[in-house]
Amino acid sequence: MTEPRIPRLYVALVHFPVLNKQGDIVTSSVTTLDVHDISRICRTYAIETFFVVTPLLAQQQLVGKIVEHWMEGFGATYNPTRKEALTTACVRNNLQEVSKTIESTAGRAPRILVPDARRFPKSVSYTEARRVLNEEDGPFLILFGTAWGLERNLVERADMVLDPIEGLSGYNHLPVRAAAAVILDRLLADREP
Amino acid sequence: MTEPRIPRLYVALVHFPVLNKQGDIVTSSVTTLDVHDISRICRTYAIETFFVVTPLLAQQQLVGKIVEHWMEGFGATYNPTRKEALTTACVRNNLQEVSKTIESTAGRAPRILVPDARRFPKSVSYTEARRVLNEEDGPFLILFGTAWGLERNLVERADMVLDPIEGLSGYNHLPVRAAAAVILDRLLADREP
Repeated sequence: MTEPRIPRLYVALVHFPVLNKQGDIVTSSVTTLDVHDISRICRTYAIETFFVVTPLLAQQQLVGKIVEHWMEGFGATYNPTRKEALTTACVRNNLQEVSKTIESTAGRAPRILVPDARRFPKSVSYTEARRVLNEEDGPFLILFGTAWGLERNLVERADMVLDPIEGLSGYNHLPVRAAAAVILDRLLADREP
Repeated sequence: MTEPRIPRLYVALVHFPVLNKQGDIVTSSVTTLDVHDISRICRTYAIETFFVVTPLLAQQQLVGKIVEHWMEGFGATYNPTRKEALTTACVRNNLQEVSKTIESTAGRAPRILVPDARRFPKSVSYTEARRVLNEEDGPFLILFGTAWGLERNLVERADMVLDPIEGLSGYNHLPVRAAAAVILDRLLADREP
């Protein structure tokens, strides 16, 4: 019997390529609150690095300012738990850069997991995804799409698509911040007997 | 064997009485994003009613405006899934009013569940709380505290205190929006075999 281990898991919040309401491929704006909330969520579930992915320089600078304010500015003293959360956050231009960064620290490119609000032939249950994360070699990278979701090719090329989060009502429109919390909890939290 | 049933569960987001950073009892400000996110989360998990609790008239009006904009204004056409989410939201002055509203529709006052970041002698696991929700008579009301958490008497007088959400890292500072999503998912989502 092997020791339980913490899966080597990375998270990317993707602002390009994503879909808008009409289904066009667009670059979405960074929402500062997504950065704050998902940083805390990633810190809670021991995610290696939280990548904020945007090709727009002004938006990259915005994320840099958020991190800097809470890491070094007034915020670092005022709210140390937020500082601690943001140590896991960093910005990248695109997913290729994310993959390279992971490869350079973890020794190989990550396997890609994508949650999606729809079910695909290759969708897997959370039970199966937990098994893979616990038993197979990582690193793993989960992509969270902003706006109306990840561009379709990203979903089709993913190594695993996660089943939709089904609540109790058939209503399936959680904000990305809430979806990220539920998904990481389902994949990673200790399960009671 | 009885049919599985959906527990009769209500949610209140409490802005008074809550604690500030120093441990004083204060009234916190309503965060519009909490209202939006927790409405969607409540809709996803088939919560009966989402009560936003604040004694401040200006803040009550703010919540009313948010709901109205998305229910009747431009937002209702632009974003119908948000409209659908906000149908579960309403404002109350205090927890006594919440309890009365529930009693008038459900026939009796609710049993109170409180999540807390600390463990108490009466804390129960999520497994036990799921059992109570599924097997015992409701209605039930979960209180989510804003700011630095619910005033201590509310926690001590609760019928059940839920175990802290433990991720993997010992870091325990999820935003209330994320905590609400994780807690309702753990209590209510269908479990895979």
